Amino acid sequence: MAYLRASSRLARLPVATRQQRCFSAAVPLRVTSPFANEPAGPTVKTSSIPGPLNQQAVKDLSKVFDTRSTNMLADYTKSKGNYIMDLDGNEFLDVYAQIASIPIGYNNPALHKAAVSEEMVSALINRPALGNFPSHEWANILETGILTVAPKGLDQVFTGMSGSDANETAYKAAFMWRRQQERGGANIEFTEEEIASSMVNQAPGSPQLSILSFKSAFHGRLFGSLSTTRSKPIHKLDIPAFDWPQAIFPLLKYPLEDHVVENKKAEEEALADVERLITTHHLPPCAVVVEPIQSEGGDNHASPAFFQGLRTLTKKHNVLLIVDEVQTGVGATGKFWAHDHWNLDTPPDIVTFSKKAQTAGYYFGNPELRPNKPYRQFNTWMGDPARAILFRAIIKEIERLDLVKHTAETGAYLYSGIERLAGKYPHEFLNLRGKGQGTFIAFDSPRRDEFLKKAKTVGINIGGSGERAVRLRPMLIFQKHHADILLEAMEKVVKS
Amino acid sequence: MAYLRASSRLARLPVATRQQRCFSAAVPLRVTSPFANEPAGPTVKTSSIPGPLNQQAVKDLSKVFDTRSTNMLADYTKSKGNYIMDLDGNEFLDVYAQIASIPIGYNNPALHKAAVSEEMVSALINRPALGNFPSHEWANILETGILTVAPKGLDQVFTGMSGSDANETAYKAAFMWRRQQERGGANIEFTEEEIASSMVNQAPGSPQLSILSFKSAFHGRLFGSLSTTRSKPIHKLDIPAFDWPQAIFPLLKYPLEDHVVENKKAEEEALADVERLITTHHLPPCAVVVEPIQSEGGDNHASPAFFQGLRTLTKKHNVLLIVDEVQTGVGATGKFWAHDHWNLDTPPDIVTFSKKAQTAGYYFGNPELRPNKPYRQFNTWMGDPARAILFRAIIKEIERLDLVKHTAETGAYLYSGIERLAGKYPHEFLNLRGKGQGTFIAFDSPRRDEFLKKAKTVGINIGGSGERAVRLRPMLIFQKHHADILLEAMEKVVKS
Repeated sequence: MAYLRASSRLARLPVATRQQRCFSAAVPLRVTSPFANEPAGPTVKTSSIPGPLNQQAVKDLSKVFDTRSTNMLADYTKSKGNYIMDLDGNEFLDVYAQIASIPIGYNNPALHKAAVSEEMVSALINRPALGNFPSHEWANILETGILTVAPKGLDQVFTGMSGSDANETAYKAAFMWRRQQERGGANIEFTEEEIASSMVNQAPGSPQLSILSFKSAFHGRLFGSLSTTRSKPIHKLDIPAFDWPQAIFPLLKYPLEDHVVENKKAEEEALADVERLITTHHLPPCAVVVEPIQSEGGDNHASPAFFQGLRTLTKKHNVLLIVDEVQTGVGATGKFWAHDHWNLDTPPDIVTFSKKAQTAGYYFGNPELRPNKPYRQFNTWMGDPARAILFRAIIKEIERLDLVKHTAETGAYLYSGIERLAGKYPHEFLNLRGKGQGTFIAFDSPRRDEFLKKAKTVGINIGGSGERAVRLRPMLIFQKHHADILLEAMEKVVKS
Repeated sequence: MAYLRASSRLARLPVATRQQRCFSAAVPLRVTSPFANEPAGPTVKTSSIPGPLNQQAVKDLSKVFDTRSTNMLADYTKSKGNYIMDLDGNEFLDVYAQIASIPIGYNNPALHKAAVSEEMVSALINRPALGNFPSHEWANILETGILTVAPKGLDQVFTGMSGSDANETAYKAAFMWRRQQERGGANIEFTEEEIASSMVNQAPGSPQLSILSFKSAFHGRLFGSLSTTRSKPIHKLDIPAFDWPQAIFPLLKYPLEDHVVENKKAEEEALADVERLITTHHLPPCAVVVEPIQSEGGDNHASPAFFQGLRTLTKKHNVLLIVDEVQTGVGATGKFWAHDHWNLDTPPDIVTFSKKAQTAGYYFGNPELRPNKPYRQFNTWMGDPARAILFRAIIKEIERLDLVKHTAETGAYLYSGIERLAGKYPHEFLNLRGKGQGTFIAFDSPRRDEFLKKAKTVGINIGGSGERAVRLRPMLIFQKHHADILLEAMEKVVKS
């Protein structure tokens, strides 16, 4: 078994003492450790899943809420660290983590502390219209939180409410930026024609421009973001969409080392398609939006060279590069931002975030991306200080426990474990991917939906992506002993 | 002075004893009363506004946040009830209330209690992906909160994140509903052509349909909602929009009693325009969206007869009626929902909410508005249990203090006060409107922006809407003595 050298603060301690060493603050152990009281392993109590209590609860809930997509009803008061508990007392190791949105465990004590602080309470009950009446603490909350993890080169943030919202406000910034350039600069006033036509949704005020996205991309489900989403028909059917272009996304073959030439070719073809669309599409793209790893679309990866090429192309054609880090951001790939893996010469123009940040928004650096007048990028709440305070607490916990490095190491350990399984069951673990990408790992399964369902019976809560992928999205506090449990459980699933 | 008969629980008590009587729970007065510690009146300490500390704070904040729309920086820890405090210690009577989004006062003790509850803390730190993993308490939170105030006839809710999000998800529900009808029912499968075309943003999968909105309407600023927003060019310029239709909104003349015939004609013309667009627009509308009172667009009212006509028309043409109660909802018009004033035969199909609810979403009743398959109306968070818990606490406080009735009465008192001022200064208070609409009152000012600015110097924080309107948006705990302060201050402003 290929153990990595344990060098992060969490990993270098044996499990037992780790809890005591890392969390020996003034408060007792059980209050400060994200792992305290975490069960030693999953517990499956009911012979079938969902169990009887869960079935009844779903029936009750369905009277007032659509439960057709309900996976399970959870008791969050009893869920701990990496483990989620259902209503029948089943405790699952959770490597889906609320669609990749729980960063540091259920009932994390550091978050509990932040949540009961007077600062949080005031933020909750006195929610400001941030654009008009920010609190005296807002600059400080940004500077000691969200902005401390701003991607290199991007020192500004526009805060929002969700991933879709983050992407759409980023798109709006891109459209305003492009039109300002076309107009001749920030000081040029709108024409009467622009003003009048914008009010009737016509050009030039409502410009004939587009955002270019990729096939199988997912960027959200509101009207603008959904127009760039290309993951599944069920996301898009019956909803009017802008006639915006989509480029080929390279579909890499695995294992990568056996397909070097054809993968390189696939990436070059995709880049050529991007260039073709930028230069010829009837609605000129003012930005390209891309996920570092296409997540909902099936965990589709591309190489740093591809993204470097994309940066070069977008620069060449004066098109913005928007990196959608809603699912990849905040540590899970073994870097704080997944695009840190690319070693770009110049940073992306905009990076959007949500999910594990527990708040949302977009980072930018270029001052030209701040609209030239007030109230152009505006809404009532413009984010949520309460959630920004929570993100700050998440960031501090990530730093305190060195969780990004830890995740890189645990991810490598987990990856080699699945590699071993794939060697043993080559028809069950196909196209393993995510090497060197922390715990952001996926593989294809010939009977994917059955795999996900059976995993529950061995105590694992796990999700899929695309049509065939099993996607692993553990939290950042996932450790090697959790990986061992997961590996053993997955072997049981494929053996059964 | 035309005092109304004081019949609500708050109003029938004199100010002094009111605080003691209403809030004599187990906890001491100062913790339970939304008015305890509220100043007796505004305090203006600095010779100019913003004062020196505020100016410096804006300068600091502007390094990381766009402050060009900043009105003031507030110290929410010191703001109380109806009063907001800035950094220089100025205490303003706040009749703008975070763009009409604070329902029951700053630092309301009932909300404080909800905010520190373990239920809230768990909801904050264990945020679920509601569509997949709702908590065991979710049904209860909905049933004892959001759904207890569901508009008549609408017993289902889809929760969301903001007003824009609420409107856009409502639009999506409308499009799915219409296409399902066209397809022949919920059991008819999508065609291959629909599936394939949806993925490239083309019809029939991405249908050539529209949402009909009104001139000067405001429904949000994301791409779908912004396509229905027609308030101001600054909201729309440079952002691509769907080619959706807008109908005339009746521009009523005031005082209403002097313009009965022409106002009736204006409303009939607007309805005729709606019917024309429904039957002839090249992108057939599947829904009409309307605000009970156009708020951002300038506080434009219409009569119940107009809205009854709209309900009749939409029924006649099998088009949904979506009522956007984002700004009008939750009590401020003297009814819980502003459309309660209309006495409709059949309820609206969808009612959206946000702002004072401190959470967002849309209500509906018709089961056909629940999409026929799971994952069609879905996103990661699908709302926020923490905010739903807060809304429940708001609802309970509204009920405990009978604040809707109270607001109807205070509003009538305030309205007649402004009527008096308008009699005395007929060139300063124009087109007074909102009679019988609680505190949702507005008037036009010949020097509006100056009026708003000067109001600060006499201790009033007040907002505008449209080009000329001064819009009053007090909280639901606004009382007659606050109205007296406001009236006196407004008289000072126009006299100066």
